[in-house]
Order: sequence, then C-alpha cells, then structure tokens
Amino acid sequence: MTTQIRIGIAGYGNLGRGVEAALAQNPDMTLVGVYTRRAPEDVATLSPETPVFPYEELSSNNGEIDVLILCGGSKSDLPVQSPELAARFNIVDSFDTHARIPEHFAAVDAPAREAGTTALISSGWDPGMFSINRIVGEALLPAGDTYTFWGRGLSQGHSDAVRRVPGVAAGVQYTVPSETAIAAVRSGDRPELPTRDKHVRECFVVLEEGADPDTVREAIVTMPDYFEPYNTTVTFITAEELARDHRAMPHGGFVIRSGETGEGNSQVVEYSLTLGSNPEFTASVLVAYARAVHRLSASGQVGAHTVFDVAPGLLSPKSPEQLRKDDL
Amino acid sequence: MTTQIRIGIAGYGNLGRGVEAALAQNPDMTLVGVYTRRAPEDVATLSPETPVFPYEELSSNNGEIDVLILCGGSKSDLPVQSPELAARFNIVDSFDTHARIPEHFAAVDAPAREAGTTALISSGWDPGMFSINRIVGEALLPAGDTYTFWGRGLSQGHSDAVRRVPGVAAGVQYTVPSETAIAAVRSGDRPELPTRDKHVRECFVVLEEGADPDTVREAIVTMPDYFEPYNTTVTFITAEELARDHRAMPHGGFVIRSGETGEGNSQVVEYSLTLGSNPEFTASVLVAYARAVHRLSASGQVGAHTVFDVAPGLLSPKSPEQLRKDDL
Repeated sequence: MTTQIRIGIAGYGNLGRGVEAALAQNPDMTLVGVYTRRAPEDVATLSPETPVFPYEELSSNNGEIDVLILCGGSKSDLPVQSPELAARFNIVDSFDTHARIPEHFAAVDAPAREAGTTALISSGWDPGMFSINRIVGEALLPAGDTYTFWGRGLSQGHSDAVRRVPGVAAGVQYTVPSETAIAAVRSGDRPELPTRDKHVRECFVVLEEGADPDTVREAIVTMPDYFEPYNTTVTFITAEELARDHRAMPHGGFVIRSGETGEGNSQVVEYSLTLGSNPEFTASVLVAYARAVHRLSASGQVGAHTVFDVAPGLLSPKSPEQLRKDDL
Repeated sequence: MTTQIRIGIAGYGNLGRGVEAALAQNPDMTLVGVYTRRAPEDVATLSPETPVFPYEELSSNNGEIDVLILCGGSKSDLPVQSPELAARFNIVDSFDTHARIPEHFAAVDAPAREAGTTALISSGWDPGMFSINRIVGEALLPAGDTYTFWGRGLSQGHSDAVRRVPGVAAGVQYTVPSETAIAAVRSGDRPELPTRDKHVRECFVVLEEGADPDTVREAIVTMPDYFEPYNTTVTFITAEELARDHRAMPHGGFVIRSGETGEGNSQVVEYSLTLGSNPEFTASVLVAYARAVHRLSASGQVGAHTVFDVAPGLLSPKSPEQLRKDDL
C-alpha cells in the first residue's frame, strides 16, 4: 500500500476513542479528524494532535476522507446518520439492533447506490465476527446446531438502551451466560435452548432525581428486542458506585457449531473472544472493515454491504500475493 | 436456489468418500459421479446409486458438471490434475503443501483464465479455515502474536508423504502439539516458539518386504517441508497393528491471536476444531467452497482463487437477504 487510507471518525464516545487508538496500530491508515456534535473544544482526544471538527462539516464531502467510521449508537444515531452520510461518504457502521438490520440495510443501500458510495453496516463482533462464524459453521456442517453465548461482559448497545430510558441518569448492562446452559452445550447433547434460558441481563442504574424506580424498571424489562426476551434484573445504585465499580468494559463469548458428518462422526467448531475492552475490540473490527470498504469502493462495488459480503483477504493490509505466500 | 449445483468428484479415497457423504447433507447440490483412475467396477461408493466413471471421461467437458472437486493428493496428483482440469472445468482442490502454494496458484490461474473457468485452490481447514483465522486475527489485532497448534491427529497430507517413500508399504502420521508450548501460549506470555518446538510428528510405518528400516527412516525425517523442520519419530509396525490401532482419523487444533489494544488491554481470539473425522470435515469444507465457486463462476470471476478471496456469504445456501434477516 503506497497511499494512506484517510479515515474520519463521526462521533466520539468509547467507540470513537477505540477507533482513534486502533488507527494508531495500522500504518496504512491516517486519521483526518473527529467530527462531533459537542463543542469541539470540549472533546479531549487520546492524541492531542487529533483534529476535532464540528459534525456539520460532514454536510459536504471535500474529498479528504476515504472512509468515514460512524461511532454513534444504534438506537437513535445510526438510523439517521448512516443513510445521510452514505449519500456523501464511504461509511462503516456498527448498527447492532439485530431485528432491524434488513430495514437499516435498505435505508443505507438506496442513497449509497445513488451517490456511488460504498457502505458496510453492522460491523463489529456481534453482529460481525460472530455472525460470520455462525453462517460458516452452518455451511460447513449442515447437520448440526449453532450456539452463541455472550459474556460475562458489559454490552454497549444494551447499556445505551438503558441510558435512553426516561428517568435514567446513568447505567450499565452486563450480559451473563447461564452456567447450566453452557454445560449442556459442551456435553455434546445439542440441547434446545430458548433465548431466555441462555443468558441473564443485569442492569445497574443511577436514577435521575425524582424518577420513579418502578416505572424505570418496567420500561427497561419490557423493552422489545433488547430486554423483553430475557430474564432481566435492574439494580439501582449511586453515581459513586457506578464510577467505582463499573468502569472496566470487558466482554467476550463464543459461537459453537456442533455437527455430524458421515456415519455419526462428531465435528465441533468453536470461535471464542476474551476481550479486555469491548469498545476497543469493536473499534479494531470497524477499522479493518474500513480498509475493506476502501478497496470495495476502489473496485466500483457501490451500495450497502455486510460482513457476509467481504472476502477475508480484503481485511488484511497485505496484498493477495503476499497473503498466499505467507499465510495459506 | 432453484437449480441444483451439479458436482463431480475426481479421485475416490478418504477425501472423495467424504465429499460423497457431505453432498448428501446439502440439498442444493447433486452428485454427477465419481471419476477414478481405478477400474470403475472396483470402486465401492458409499451409495450404490453413485455413478462411477473412468477418469478419462474428464478429458472433455460435456456440460454436465458445474464444479469438479479434486480429491487427489498434494504430493503428485494435484500439481498435475488441477492445472489440467481447470482448463475444462470449474474446480476446487485441497492442495496443502504450504511452501508451494504460489507456484500452484500460478499453474492453475493461467489455464483457468484462458478457458474462462473458476478455480479455488488450497481449500480445507489448514490451509483453509485456519488460514482465514490467522489473517483476520492479524488484521483485527495488528499488535499481537498468532499461534497455530495442530492435533493430536492423523494428518492426511503427511501420511500420504510417508506412504510415497520407497520401501513403505503403508503408514500413518500423527501431529501432536507440544504440551509445554501450549501452556506457554495460554499463559498470555506471547512466547517465541520455533516451529520445531511446537509439535512432534509421529510416524507409524509398515515396511515393504526386504526394505531397509534405516534408509526409510532417514528418507522420512529429512523430507523437506513435511518432516525436516520437526522432531519426527518413526515407529515400524505390522500391517495387522496398523489395521487394528490406526483406523480412526481424528484431528483438530486451534489458532490463537493474542494481542493488545489501547493502553494495554488484552484481547484474545481463538478458533478451534475438534474433528471426529479429518477427511470428512475437509470434504465438508470443499463442498461449501464448491458452492462459492459456482457463484463466482456465474458472476464471471474467472481464474484461480483462494479462501482469502471468498466472501463468507457465498458459502451459505441462503440468499444475501435471508442471511441479513436471520444471521446478523
């Protein structure tokens, strides 16, 4: 790669910070700047050299950004920003509301095709790397069952959803795999496990002054897609307890495909992640997919894509020749 | 998929048998027949309905085969057959001599481009799924180390190599990961491990009558690429012992990428296989890639490809729309 891939970051929370950190590990990429809805002077980037611009500068494309990485939330940022920005830029987002992905894909695909840009939606590790391992596991072992377990870890998407509930000042959500469910899968029995039985969702919430705990709890546990299908617990804590006990953002989980071939030969494929920082790992995935988007765009493949449409070689900084020589 | 993908099998050993079994699990594919250098009447297929044809019938393409899956060995079959057959058919092979892959790619690419066919070389699990996990792990975590461990398991490619040594009547080779090396990696220390220290290669060999054990042993342990870089043991056994103790073909292993993001957050990605039957799993991989080759061919992407060039969605029988709806 002789020319650097020029990246913009739209939105600067934990994920945006993770993207800034990941770009520093990828010498074929360069960071044009962070675009924020906050006052730029209020945004403290990891590197003091990182330029910070008002979000409005993204209302036109001055040709300085090859790929824009969107770091907003799935609940209300990305449904608006991804279609808008795909009309002007090549983009990567991490939209993770599983049930709404077809809708989001269509909303991004139309403006991207019209503008001739390339968009990659729903990147990250789930959706993302876990999704790939689910479909590949099923393609390799058609006679079998797939199991996904998450955690124990702090979920950004679900914490974001909690924090948007009226009356919530702050909060976090941990996804915890059920020990009995894991034991059943690892036994090789291929059990049937309803979603509700595989994980527990634990919310730790700081209330706004005067908010009613019962109303908040009810709004959380009945939220469709996010919490309704699970056993969800809500624990109210103080702002001090939140700051003291809930700063680390570990996560992880595993996808297991357990199948059979021939006359009853057992075959097990497992993909597992043990993440010290969930947002930093998600950011690292977005950055690798930004490289792929740049290449897809260069080869004229416009419109919306998902991780299912991206050949693994496009993620690597190496050339196809080098990959064949070094890595097969 | 409304039209069946019509598959031919070239070569019918353990791998060809595995492909026959895998095709029975994939309702979007149909088996045209097995093509063999042996007398067709001597080949006992898994299903008595499977047609068996002489290999010479592949000297022309009568339009009945969409993708031909080559099931010969990497040492002497595939270097000849893959370029020859790619001049007439879309092909998938499992060429697994790592050091010679660029040469094999070039030898297949030229006739495929000239004929307008699509070829996928070096599919399987290593090279194959493990290769993908190595390059993706490195792309996601540029600051880190990658470790591949194999076994304990019977290696087809290396057993094949043992059996081609003059004086060897029959034999098998087991790849065994070094316990101390695994422990060092799992500790998170990211140790430097020379190839020789990670695995032991154990060969069990039945000699031809009159063959000299020392000559055979020396020919095996000094074989470049296959055995020379490893600590290799050769144990001579009887044909009866081989049949009694070495019939199962388990294998497996794992690829670990251990890296860091941000300010020292540890991130670990692990892909692991526990295979009851190595040839049946390899065959299942070849069959899924045959589906991808059929689609690449339909979209005009001719020439040689590797697993690095194939988007994961192409492996699945589902449509892109269905995958986005069900699996992201």
